[in-house]
Amino acid sequence: MEAFSDGVIAIAITLLVLNLQVPHVKDGDLFDAIVDDWTSYAAFVLSFAVIGIMWVSHHSMFERIVTVDRPLMFLNLILLMGIAFLPFPTSLLATYVREEGSNAHIAAAIYSTAMLAIGLAFLGMWLRLARRPELLIEGIAPERIQAAIRKSLVGPVVYAVTIGLAFVSAAACFVIYALMTVYFALGPSSRVATPEEQAAAAEAAAEGAED
Amino acid sequence: MEAFSDGVIAIAITLLVLNLQVPHVKDGDLFDAIVDDWTSYAAFVLSFAVIGIMWVSHHSMFERIVTVDRPLMFLNLILLMGIAFLPFPTSLLATYVREEGSNAHIAAAIYSTAMLAIGLAFLGMWLRLARRPELLIEGIAPERIQAAIRKSLVGPVVYAVTIGLAFVSAAACFVIYALMTVYFALGPSSRVATPEEQAAAAEAAAEGAED
Amino acid sequence: MEAFSDGVIAIAITLLVLNLQVPHVKDGDLFDAIVDDWTSYAAFVLSFAVIGIMWVSHHSMFERIVTVDRPLMFLNLILLMGIAFLPFPTSLLATYVREEGSNAHIAAAIYSTAMLAIGLAFLGMWLRLARRPELLIEGIAPERIQAAIRKSLVGPVVYAVTIGLAFVSAAACFVIYALMTVYFALGPSSRVATPEEQAAAAEAAAEGAED
Amino acid sequence: MEAFSDGVIAIAITLLVLNLQVPHVKDGDLFDAIVDDWTSYAAFVLSFAVIGIMWVSHHSMFERIVTVDRPLMFLNLILLMGIAFLPFPTSLLATYVREEGSNAHIAAAIYSTAMLAIGLAFLGMWLRLARRPELLIEGIAPERIQAAIRKSLVGPVVYAVTIGLAFVSAAACFVIYALMTVYFALGPSSRVATPEEQAAAAEAAAEGAED
Repeated sequence: MEAFSDGVIAIAITLLVLNLQVPHVKDGDLFDAIVDDWTSYAAFVLSFAVIGIMWVSHHSMFERIVTVDRPLMFLNLILLMGIAFLPFPTSLLATYVREEGSNAHIAAAIYSTAMLAIGLAFLGMWLRLARRPELLIEGIAPERIQAAIRKSLVGPVVYAVTIGLAFVSAAACFVIYALMTVYFALGPSSRVATPEEQAAAAEAAAEGAED
Repeated sequence: MEAFSDGVIAIAITLLVLNLQVPHVKDGDLFDAIVDDWTSYAAFVLSFAVIGIMWVSHHSMFERIVTVDRPLMFLNLILLMGIAFLPFPTSLLATYVREEGSNAHIAAAIYSTAMLAIGLAFLGMWLRLARRPELLIEGIAPERIQAAIRKSLVGPVVYAVTIGLAFVSAAACFVIYALMTVYFALGPSSRVATPEEQAAAAEAAAEGAED
Repeated sequence: MEAFSDGVIAIAITLLVLNLQVPHVKDGDLFDAIVDDWTSYAAFVLSFAVIGIMWVSHHSMFERIVTVDRPLMFLNLILLMGIAFLPFPTSLLATYVREEGSNAHIAAAIYSTAMLAIGLAFLGMWLRLARRPELLIEGIAPERIQAAIRKSLVGPVVYAVTIGLAFVSAAACFVIYALMTVYFALGPSSRVATPEEQAAAAEAAAEGAED
Repeated sequence: MEAFSDGVIAIAITLLVLNLQVPHVKDGDLFDAIVDDWTSYAAFVLSFAVIGIMWVSHHSMFERIVTVDRPLMFLNLILLMGIAFLPFPTSLLATYVREEGSNAHIAAAIYSTAMLAIGLAFLGMWLRLARRPELLIEGIAPERIQAAIRKSLVGPVVYAVTIGLAFVSAAACFVIYALMTVYFALGPSSRVATPEEQAAAAEAAAEGAED
């Protein structure tokens, strides 16, 4: 399951480049054409970061899983569907975000909805794991799973809010999506640490403080 | 063989997103353009579910296989060809299903034919395994393989019927394809359980009943 | 190296579907449009079989390899470049083979050249392995490597001939490409058997004769 | 992390073929159309070689890594973003390099910038590993990491120079990119050898001298 998921995520992240179109312009106009198309590059970087971080979260969840039952498998397929779908709203957002008219609002609302669905699938997987801790490796404290669930709520809540915000400003949504990737990248890790890892993390933190 | 198959299936499932086109419309028309194109999204979800379930069946078959002989390898390549081809009839169906004219009939008949071919390849693989049980891991009861063969007949029979039905109603075919994914997802598992798994499944069922 | 090669081959084989275009025709014309486009489907099946068989040969070669030196690595990259390139001449052939004019000749000559290059890369890899048998697993008899080299000559010789034949008849080339896949699929295995495999193969052949 | 990276690199290298367009010309014109489009084929070969060599470097770096910390993971994601992006500047370069007008200068400057970013990500990863040698397998001498860092400087320095050169001659940049792949392919290996490998390499070199 994990190798298949990794494959789907790796393909989705790499297909993002197909959203970038070579402009066919006459001599002297290429620089302007590319600058004009800056939202495509920004959306590429955004969705690359988004999917990259999802891969990290997904990988760290599956490092803790021993076996997968049916509900977990279907939640995972829904999660992968969301990720495999993401190049489409990325392209939609890139095309319309600059206009700031009603098309931009729709595009941002669709991007937010896709992110919300992916976030809910992640949350659903942790909820399932909380109910079936025997699917996890041994030695994972229940409060750690509860912490993972709480952290998994951040995404869906924020992305639900951006569905509404989309109808005010698509650009503001774009900024929030970008801030969310920074939060997930630099914020508190959503890893469910094993006891060994906690010890290692504490040690690393101590070392980091000395830097 | 399994890693290669997993790769092909993961790529085919992710390429489905390339069937989704960003509509280029003037301001205010994006919502309608996307609603108008709902068959593309429905076909994306359908084929994602179809390929996802095929991956589950394929993976669970290969978990039981120790070595692959030539006929099994060629049946597997035919199976993969069918799966890799699926984004094309998906796009065909998405384009024509709403029309309910003769083009829609052709599109649905082609989708059904592709599904029939994939179903027959699965069936052929189980028939080969029934004849060469030494290719399987030890301890798999012959009646379990017979059960897998019987279950593998459901797909080809239904998809053969939908080839005819396609010329009556493409929409009805679409609904049946969707119901088939629900059946394969929630219906009786087509896994050929090992003795250990049967015991585990019985236990899980007992637990599930308590929920 | 093998996982990376498998990935490239799996992606190239699956990208072939992108050569299939949904025809946009008015009601009643879809069947004819698809029949008209039969060379695209034939080319899809051909190149899927071609790449599928290449994967089998590549995989069976790498099963015998313990370590990869630089020349082998670069030969392998050239081989992968040929395989990754193949969707392009496939599309070229599909577009022009029916015309039987000079464009068809060029298209077939390019397909043949790509196949020749791939065949030469395979041959080069076996020649390198013959010179550095320490890169192979132990117990592989030198005469087996010589047999692999002789078998690896079949492809390049035939494909070199089809470069010339292309300027007579592109359709004849197409038929020869198809026959070559049948030959490689059903003809004498190009596997370099380990001693254990030879014994197993002899046993399987004996069993097969009883069928 | 390595399997995911391998997947992204394998997909990016294979997606390059999508930059090759089948020309739709009337009979007799295909050969000229393809010859006219030679920059597309040259750019395909160039970027295939570039990404192929990056894979080799990346793989050989990860063979030395035991665990990945956060900074290393993000540097690796930036590296993958650069590689996944490369099909776009490849297409840009193929489209405009022949013109030798200001569009060609922009296209070459963008290709150089992408290569510079990838080179800096590689350099950043080695710098991180130099600071956290505990992330590496045991027995790697610090001077070997320093050598890897020095070798990792070659790419960024040359590609930074080609950003300037792009505004003089895009064709000259193209030649330098090609020479760089030859240098990385045939030049001094950037592998950080383990003690065992150094011994093996010395032996291989001695053998090579006898050829």
